[in-house]
Amino acid sequence: QFTLIDWKPRRPDMLADAFGLGKIMQDGLVFRQNFSIRSYEIGADRTASIETLMNHLQETALNHARSAGLLVDGFGSTPEMTKKNLIWVVTKMQVLVERYPSWEDVVEVDTWVASSGKNGMRRDWHVHDYRTGQTVLRATSVWVMMNKLTRRLSKIPEEVRAEIGPYFVDRDPIIDEDSRKVQKLQDDTADYIKRGLNPRWGDLDINQHVNNVKYIGWILESAPISILESHELVGMTLEYRRECGRDSVLQSLTAVSNHGSDCSPAAGIECQHLLRLESGAEIMRGRTEWRPKRAQGLQNMGPLPAGST
Amino acid sequence: QFTLIDWKPRRPDMLADAFGLGKIMQDGLVFRQNFSIRSYEIGADRTASIETLMNHLQETALNHARSAGLLVDGFGSTPEMTKKNLIWVVTKMQVLVERYPSWEDVVEVDTWVASSGKNGMRRDWHVHDYRTGQTVLRATSVWVMMNKLTRRLSKIPEEVRAEIGPYFVDRDPIIDEDSRKVQKLQDDTADYIKRGLNPRWGDLDINQHVNNVKYIGWILESAPISILESHELVGMTLEYRRECGRDSVLQSLTAVSNHGSDCSPAAGIECQHLLRLESGAEIMRGRTEWRPKRAQGLQNMGPLPAGST
Repeated sequence: QFTLIDWKPRRPDMLADAFGLGKIMQDGLVFRQNFSIRSYEIGADRTASIETLMNHLQETALNHARSAGLLVDGFGSTPEMTKKNLIWVVTKMQVLVERYPSWEDVVEVDTWVASSGKNGMRRDWHVHDYRTGQTVLRATSVWVMMNKLTRRLSKIPEEVRAEIGPYFVDRDPIIDEDSRKVQKLQDDTADYIKRGLNPRWGDLDINQHVNNVKYIGWILESAPISILESHELVGMTLEYRRECGRDSVLQSLTAVSNHGSDCSPAAGIECQHLLRLESGAEIMRGRTEWRPKRAQGLQNMGPLPAGST
Repeated sequence: QFTLIDWKPRRPDMLADAFGLGKIMQDGLVFRQNFSIRSYEIGADRTASIETLMNHLQETALNHARSAGLLVDGFGSTPEMTKKNLIWVVTKMQVLVERYPSWEDVVEVDTWVASSGKNGMRRDWHVHDYRTGQTVLRATSVWVMMNKLTRRLSKIPEEVRAEIGPYFVDRDPIIDEDSRKVQKLQDDTADYIKRGLNPRWGDLDINQHVNNVKYIGWILESAPISILESHELVGMTLEYRRECGRDSVLQSLTAVSNHGSDCSPAAGIECQHLLRLESGAEIMRGRTEWRPKRAQGLQNMGPLPAGST
């Protein structure tokens, strides 16, 4: 009989990941976790939403830190960081989506970290379709340290560098940096403004802060639904400027421009975005790129069955 | 060497569920799926939100239908239902939560179906903590058939009954029916009204309808944040009355009453809820029960680390 006991030592990697919490790959520097796309993670297009994909990135980043023994409490602080009241904050996120996965697809998320300048850490992700190997998305991000008491940015202390340095890989970013400046939208340059956005209780993380993935939902709230219907998001560059707490009330601004000189309906679209407090203080600015849904070969599926509520 | 080939036939159940899609249990009537709670599924309390738990229920229901070969397209229609343009709609949902799971907890969701009156189907769920066996929640729901063209309710045709009947278990509901009438709130009986709620693109399912889990988020939007801070939801009874489409604009009404005669801060709270269209048409009514968080033994964790955005 094939019992759990004789099975266990042979496939320790599978047991370790029996619940899909991911694992460090052989080189010790890349962390990998699979996600099967669930019914409630897909939208009207029958594909996973960008927020779902971004949530998977967050989850692998945290599980990577934990599996490396670098997570003490909260969201990714190392032991030395915890001693020194330091936390990670994301300052930039760049994402390129090649193909949105569908319900039941399994995506394989690889992530690793590298140094970024003197006082930053870069975290990259490469997401594949588990079955076909096709790239789903690539993303790169920059993180810096903030003192959680003074809320000021901090250099990386030597003790912290000693903890995290061994995990840094020596690789170029998985996406070339988009060096075009992200413009700051103003009332008179925005095409759409949505006011009065505020975090719901369920949007708060364990620190009573709004998770950075939620910001993406908010920038999309001011994008016209006609774009969401006809186009899909294929790229974004986000610059995070300020924290958003539970009592913040936000405004989301969007400006839309057609891509290049091509004004046909089949052309891509570029949007500029700004999230700001009602006081005017900037929370995030960003740029998104969209391509027509049909261009990706999404078949016209005919009338959809109507809803089960 | 232990290869995939000699491993495959010995543990077919594990292979079948290698990606956490669940499986039919030995009796053929109960479907089971495990979920590990992810970082982005927990909120300020460090526990999974009610919406997360409800999403897990939806996912197991759909995977159950699919694994039984009863899912053709969309969300749970059988082959005969598809021929006859019938879809399932939920009319009632009753949930009792015993304990909210935390990040990294694994919950084991069992689900089964039974008949409900002449023309309904009951679906129950029992969710355990995988490691401790402790009950997380129990839920029971009633579903009826609707013609997706006429949007009228339908009897269960014999051909459909022949498809689904063999899967019905002969068991009492996992929760005694809450037979107290759910009152319909009016403007003058509501304590809180939140207006202007409308579906975001990301809230729509593949049928361009709002998923019933989203409704729960909306009823909570009119509950005062002081209750969400001090209490946790332990029970709800929801009656779904009407579909909500992508262009609907909703109002959420809540009335709050202390439990019984006990007015101490440690007492439970009961709320009445109504979701309605701006025209006044009723979408859903519900009742929720709340208990103080401390009563559940949630330790006071001291200052939390501040947020990583």
